[in-house]
Amino acid sequence: MDPAMTDRRLFTRKLDLARGTVDMSHGSGGKAMAQMVRELFAAAFANPLLDQGNDQAAFDAPAGRMVVTTDGFVVSPLFFPGGDIGSLAVHGTVNDVAMAGAVPLYLTAGFILEEGFPLADLKRLVDSMAHAAREAGVSIVTGDTKVVERGKGDGVFITTTGIGVVPPGVAPSGERARPGDAILVSGTMGDHGVAIMSTRENLSFETDIRSDSAALHGLVAGMVAAVPDVHVLRDPTRGGLATTLNEVAHQSGVGMLLREADIPLKAEVAAACELLGLDPLYVANEGKLIAICAAEDSARLLEAMRAHPLGAEAAVVGTVVEDSHRFVQMETRFGGKRIVDWLSGEQLPRIC
Amino acid sequence: MDPAMTDRRLFTRKLDLARGTVDMSHGSGGKAMAQMVRELFAAAFANPLLDQGNDQAAFDAPAGRMVVTTDGFVVSPLFFPGGDIGSLAVHGTVNDVAMAGAVPLYLTAGFILEEGFPLADLKRLVDSMAHAAREAGVSIVTGDTKVVERGKGDGVFITTTGIGVVPPGVAPSGERARPGDAILVSGTMGDHGVAIMSTRENLSFETDIRSDSAALHGLVAGMVAAVPDVHVLRDPTRGGLATTLNEVAHQSGVGMLLREADIPLKAEVAAACELLGLDPLYVANEGKLIAICAAEDSARLLEAMRAHPLGAEAAVVGTVVEDSHRFVQMETRFGGKRIVDWLSGEQLPRIC
Repeated sequence: MDPAMTDRRLFTRKLDLARGTVDMSHGSGGKAMAQMVRELFAAAFANPLLDQGNDQAAFDAPAGRMVVTTDGFVVSPLFFPGGDIGSLAVHGTVNDVAMAGAVPLYLTAGFILEEGFPLADLKRLVDSMAHAAREAGVSIVTGDTKVVERGKGDGVFITTTGIGVVPPGVAPSGERARPGDAILVSGTMGDHGVAIMSTRENLSFETDIRSDSAALHGLVAGMVAAVPDVHVLRDPTRGGLATTLNEVAHQSGVGMLLREADIPLKAEVAAACELLGLDPLYVANEGKLIAICAAEDSARLLEAMRAHPLGAEAAVVGTVVEDSHRFVQMETRFGGKRIVDWLSGEQLPRIC
Repeated sequence: MDPAMTDRRLFTRKLDLARGTVDMSHGSGGKAMAQMVRELFAAAFANPLLDQGNDQAAFDAPAGRMVVTTDGFVVSPLFFPGGDIGSLAVHGTVNDVAMAGAVPLYLTAGFILEEGFPLADLKRLVDSMAHAAREAGVSIVTGDTKVVERGKGDGVFITTTGIGVVPPGVAPSGERARPGDAILVSGTMGDHGVAIMSTRENLSFETDIRSDSAALHGLVAGMVAAVPDVHVLRDPTRGGLATTLNEVAHQSGVGMLLREADIPLKAEVAAACELLGLDPLYVANEGKLIAICAAEDSARLLEAMRAHPLGAEAAVVGTVVEDSHRFVQMETRFGGKRIVDWLSGEQLPRIC
C-alpha cells in the first residue's frame, strides 16, 4: 500500500494556507474537512495519540485521582501582545488543571470557525497552540472542527479540555480556606486584561504592556512539593483577584482581609487602568495564581514560588478571617478599609 | 453560617427564566455569571463532582485504558423533531466514547452564548441536556460559559468532552478492518440529517421524520460482551455512511463492497432525500453505528445488536475486500456496481 498514492487520490491540491479561507465544506465531514484536519491541525499537533486518527483518543492511565476541566475561548482580538487565542486556550486549560495541584497530561480542542476566516491566520494560531502545548509538555490528543456561516461566528472560537493526575496527598479546593490562613499571589495583577484592552482601544503606552499568558503547572509542581497541604489554588482570570477571592470566601464560608500595598502591580498597568477607568483588582490574569495555605506554611510556600521564574514576584497579600458575611475587605494604602465586592456587570467582555 | 443569607446578599433577584435574555455580563466572570451558573446550569446538571464548585472536577480512576473525545455542536435550528442541540451534544459525545468500546463516565460542557438569546430557550435546552445525560447514566461534571456580542454567534454553541473506560480486551479502531470482515449497521440511515433539513426547509411529510439522536453505549456494551474482538466501531455522523466507510478504508488500507439492497432505509427518508436532492448514504446519523468484525463473528454480533432496542433493525450490509485503491464500492439494486466516494463539498451544513 502506498499512502502517498492514496493521498494524491484524496487531495489533488494542497490546502492554500497562504491565500485560502475557511469555507462551509471544511465543516461538512467530507473530503475538504479531512484535508484541513490533516494538513493543518494534525500537522501542527502531531503526536501518537492524535495520529490514531479515531474520533477519540485512548490512553493507559494509572490508578489515582484525576481531574478534568473545560474552557471556551472567545477572546477579541484573536492576536494580542504576549499571545493569541491559540496559546491562551492551552495556557488557560493547563492552568485550570494545575489549580487542582495536578500534572496536566492531555488536551482536547474543539474549533468553531467562521466562514471566510483566512487560513493563514488559522495556521498562525494553530501553530501557536501547538508551540504552547509542546512548551507545557502536554499533547493535544483529539479534537473537532465545525464551520458556521459568515456573520454567525467571529473568526475562531476554541474550547479546550484538559486531563491531569493529582499527586497523592494534594487536594487544594475552594472550600478549604480557614481563618488564619495566608493569602499569596504569584505576581503582578491585571497584565492580561490591560494588554487586551489597550489593543482593542488602540492605545499605546510608553512601555508595552503584554499579556502574562503562561502555563503555571511547573510553578505549581514546585509549590505542592514544598507544601503538599496547600489549601486553595486558583487562577484569577475573568473577574480578577477580587472576584476570585469572593468566590473562595463564599465556598469556604470565611472572610478575607487584603493589604493593598502588598498586592504586586506594574506601574504601567496601574497607569493604564487609571486611564481606562478600570480597577486592577477586577482585571483578568492568565499567568498568575492565588494560593491559600496555613500561616505556618506561608514562608515555605513563598520561597517555593519565588524560586520559579513565574513566581519571582510572589507576595503574601492578606489573611483569611472569620466573617459570617463572607466579605473580602482591603486595607487601603491610606490606612482605611473597604469592601472588595464581586464584579458586578461586565467590566471587560471577551477577555479570554 | 447561613448560606441562604449569603445567597440573598449575592443575588437580590432571581434570574428571569421566563422573559430574560443572555447579556454580556453573563460571561464576565462576575456576579451575573455566578448567578446563571448556579440557577441554570448547576441546578439542571446537579451532581457531586459539579457541586465541588471548582474550575475542574476531580475523580478517582482505576488503572486501565481510558478514552477522551471532544465534539462541537453548532446545529441549526437549535430545536428539531426528535431532539435539540442539548440532547445532541450529550448523545454525540457519549457515542464517540462508545465507539472505542468504552463505558462513558463523565462529560464536560462549554457553552458559547450569543447576547440576546432567550433564557427560556437556554433553560429548555439545558434541561434537555441534563435529561439526556441522566438517561445515559453520565454526569456533566464541569463546564464553562462565554458570551459573545449579538451577531458574533448564533444563539448557542456547545462543545462537549467525554471520558470513558475501555473494558480489557476491547480495542476497536479505524485501522483494524481486514479483507473478509463483515460490515454491519445498527439501523436505518439518514434519519437525523433529513429531520434537520426538512425543519430548515419547512417541509412536512405525511409521516413525521424524527432525528435518530440517541446514546449508543448500551448497545455497544451488549456488542462487545458478545464479540469483544469487534474490529471497528464508528458512528456515521457528518458525511454519513459513505464518508465514514471511506475513512475506515483509508485508515485500514482496504476496500469495501456494500450491497445497496441490504442497507436499512426508511421509505419516508428515501422519499424526502429524493425531494431534497440528497443521497441518503451521505446524510448524517446521530443514533446509529457501523461495526466491522471477522466474518465468523458476524452472526453473533448481529444477534447481539438486534437484542437491543437501538439495534432492532441491524443488518449486515457488506464486506471488506482487498483493494490497493481503498475504494468503497456498492452493488446497486439493479445489479450494477458503483464507486461510493467521499463526500465532496458541503451537502448539509451545520447538521450537528
